[in-house]
Amino acid sequence: MSTATLAPLNATFKRLHHFSHLASIASWDQAAMMPTKGNEARAAAMAELQVLMHQTLTDPKLPALFEAAADADLSDTDRASLAEMRREWALVNRLPQDLVEAQSLAAARCEHAWRSQRKANDWQGFAPNLREVVKLARQEARFLADATGATPYEALMDKFEPGMRESAITALFGDVKTWLPGLIAQVMEQQQTQTVVSASGPFPVERQRALGVEIMGLLGFDFDAGRLDISMHPFCGGVPQDVRITTRYNEAAFAPSLMGIIHETGHARYEQRLPRDTLHLPVGRARSMGVHESQSLSFEMQLARSPAFMQLIAPLIKKHLGDQPAFDADNLARLFTRVKRGFIRVDADELTYPAHVILRFEIERALIAGEIEVDDIPALWAEKMRDYLGVDVAGNFENGCMQDIHWPAGMFGYFPSYTLGAMYAAQYFATIRQQHPDLDARIASGDLSPVMNWLDANIWSQASRWSTDELVTRATGEPLNASHFRRHLELRYLA
Amino acid sequence: MSTATLAPLNATFKRLHHFSHLASIASWDQAAMMPTKGNEARAAAMAELQVLMHQTLTDPKLPALFEAAADADLSDTDRASLAEMRREWALVNRLPQDLVEAQSLAAARCEHAWRSQRKANDWQGFAPNLREVVKLARQEARFLADATGATPYEALMDKFEPGMRESAITALFGDVKTWLPGLIAQVMEQQQTQTVVSASGPFPVERQRALGVEIMGLLGFDFDAGRLDISMHPFCGGVPQDVRITTRYNEAAFAPSLMGIIHETGHARYEQRLPRDTLHLPVGRARSMGVHESQSLSFEMQLARSPAFMQLIAPLIKKHLGDQPAFDADNLARLFTRVKRGFIRVDADELTYPAHVILRFEIERALIAGEIEVDDIPALWAEKMRDYLGVDVAGNFENGCMQDIHWPAGMFGYFPSYTLGAMYAAQYFATIRQQHPDLDARIASGDLSPVMNWLDANIWSQASRWSTDELVTRATGEPLNASHFRRHLELRYLA
Repeated sequence: MSTATLAPLNATFKRLHHFSHLASIASWDQAAMMPTKGNEARAAAMAELQVLMHQTLTDPKLPALFEAAADADLSDTDRASLAEMRREWALVNRLPQDLVEAQSLAAARCEHAWRSQRKANDWQGFAPNLREVVKLARQEARFLADATGATPYEALMDKFEPGMRESAITALFGDVKTWLPGLIAQVMEQQQTQTVVSASGPFPVERQRALGVEIMGLLGFDFDAGRLDISMHPFCGGVPQDVRITTRYNEAAFAPSLMGIIHETGHARYEQRLPRDTLHLPVGRARSMGVHESQSLSFEMQLARSPAFMQLIAPLIKKHLGDQPAFDADNLARLFTRVKRGFIRVDADELTYPAHVILRFEIERALIAGEIEVDDIPALWAEKMRDYLGVDVAGNFENGCMQDIHWPAGMFGYFPSYTLGAMYAAQYFATIRQQHPDLDARIASGDLSPVMNWLDANIWSQASRWSTDELVTRATGEPLNASHFRRHLELRYLA
Repeated sequence: MSTATLAPLNATFKRLHHFSHLASIASWDQAAMMPTKGNEARAAAMAELQVLMHQTLTDPKLPALFEAAADADLSDTDRASLAEMRREWALVNRLPQDLVEAQSLAAARCEHAWRSQRKANDWQGFAPNLREVVKLARQEARFLADATGATPYEALMDKFEPGMRESAITALFGDVKTWLPGLIAQVMEQQQTQTVVSASGPFPVERQRALGVEIMGLLGFDFDAGRLDISMHPFCGGVPQDVRITTRYNEAAFAPSLMGIIHETGHARYEQRLPRDTLHLPVGRARSMGVHESQSLSFEMQLARSPAFMQLIAPLIKKHLGDQPAFDADNLARLFTRVKRGFIRVDADELTYPAHVILRFEIERALIAGEIEVDDIPALWAEKMRDYLGVDVAGNFENGCMQDIHWPAGMFGYFPSYTLGAMYAAQYFATIRQQHPDLDARIASGDLSPVMNWLDANIWSQASRWSTDELVTRATGEPLNASHFRRHLELRYLA
């Protein structure tokens, strides 16, 4: 009887699920297929769909349904499902409509101007727009924090990492900060004496694609339930029954597209393996941005950049791209783990990436807390780039604090997810390795089942049944901590 | 002031236009991109969208809005726009909901079973399902005829050919019947003595595609506002700002895909050139199925199968597919106008096609009028195939009266559109030729502007501003008649 209490809510969320299917496909098409002149009509149609989804989630009948359900005698499963529906509903209903509209306008204005201001290194032009975005984000954060007892920053982060505490991130990243800069220095010194043969192109697009497709197959991507296409900015889209991943090809370099495809395949398999029976409900979706990223990084970093995986795929690289000295497995493993300090987060390697994220977390946390102002950002950015990465970015806004779309778009609290994902992935693999001491040999021989079965049983099949904390603890026996990540990086990068 | 009366109706139809955009893209994706396992989720999402569109058009607020608008003092343009909105609204609201649902169920059941029954030549299994579909179509026709004063058959045809009279079709097709069987016989006899060199393949898909794309460009297809892809059943889909045409390739024969692409490009240019400012309103859409078909047939039949056009594209065919004796322009013109009597409508050539359509019109008209029953169909079919085409199809249901999806799907009144389209196209070209006595020379030299400018000014830019009758009379100076079609066929096929 109690499950029946959820029926009207389930019906609403099933409707939303159908709308969201259409939005996903229209959005994939926009990025991967649509010719330029289709843009205006598409934007209008997608905006109509957004209005409709918003109307559905702000239906005045819903509060009473949630109240009735809260009092009902529900199974644990239904209780978890209700909590996730309530979470999705609250995300849309918790803020005053005029604040939401002001934020949307300010972000659109800031992001639009940023696209040209960034190229012009125009911090002076950018700062006033960003100030407006930050002002409204602080209002949002304050509003949510007052309602939930969260800190302002974690109230914003909750959209991406439900339940994650600011104190937990501070502790995790504080740990990483104690050893990462030293490790980077040590690794770079070691790598100076390493011999690495570069691969020489060109690598025709069709051959790169064929290589990518074969490796997607090796990684279990189901081509009857998904596709690989091209877009300017690679992403994993579509719907769980039909996952659309994209990449872009550069004929001068095969590595970025290959690793990009493997990364997106990690996202894709999570989606493809979510349990079929609850896909229409929030509890049936991926757990969080960080957990999603932990899948792409399990594939790209833990698995694909390992020497064992390079032994497995070196013959495939040779088969598709032709033989050359660079394609020796040991050399490939070195090529794919070169460490280089740079300005740009999205170009960073596995080892320096966390430094870029920690820097952003520290600045945006202080910004939302009101401890610093927008005008303080450039100096702080330069200082932290020096401290954590030893590079001098002073005066270079384009490749400094103006490089990311997140802040102009009003997305504060997103950056930690990237490094949380890397840490989760390291912790998963520590567990897998413990259960399979012969893991590397099995990977090298083409048997990826220890990895895939573990991810399937512990992450993919669990969807949003548990909180992130519970999910990770059930899977690895302990809450998230930085020690596995550190051990992974030391083992991989210190020869 | 009076235009303001339409504002709430315009807003509703703009919303529908956005939903319809999403439906078109999702449906194109389903046919051209979607992997098999995506089907169930896609069908559910598209059904949700259909429900939503139906709800929007059956909104109980609409009747009052239409009443208020009917009394308003409107410009001619607004009056035409209102009439088209009312037409679209009436199409959804005029029938009792229980009849609509019964029809939908009966058609789904009949069409589903037909897919296997056709292959098994199982008329006995098919007939009871078709009887149910016909019974309900008669109820629909009677219901609509009583309300509008139309004949039952023209009440059904109105969905596809607004305003077309049954008596007009009977007269037009009656005219064609007096000369077509004789003309077919005469042409086939002449062609027996003609020497035609067949093209020898294989023709690789990529080369066929490149040829198709170049010819689409020649025909003015805007690739910034559309695409060419592959699907099992070729179609023209997408939205006017972003027209998606499809084809399928057979490496053994280049002609079907080439002519298919040219045909769909005709549909596409109509859509691409509809006036931008009224695309969101019914008055801004294509006029009717017959007029749409008149565009594809203007391109495929009037233009592309002419000796002049063959002179123009023979060098392109050689460029993409390699030189061979069959690709001489005169030989190509003969190849593309070979006449052959056959069982199958969709495989029929320009000359025998109308016979297939007239036969179907006569049977479905009598069926809806209650003059014949489902059980009478096979004998009538065989008799008419003998009379009009001189072929014997007795007992062969698969390639006889079970070959088309239209009847099992409950679509009665659609078939005439194909041949109306061919007649319109012939009548357009008679006018164009009168204005440009040098038309063939200009086509052969690559100047298609006399054709494109005429179609643009007289058809594409007019959308649904006028009734079909007015549109054709304004464009050609006379109502539709069969004489231009006859003259075209005699000139082309009687050497």
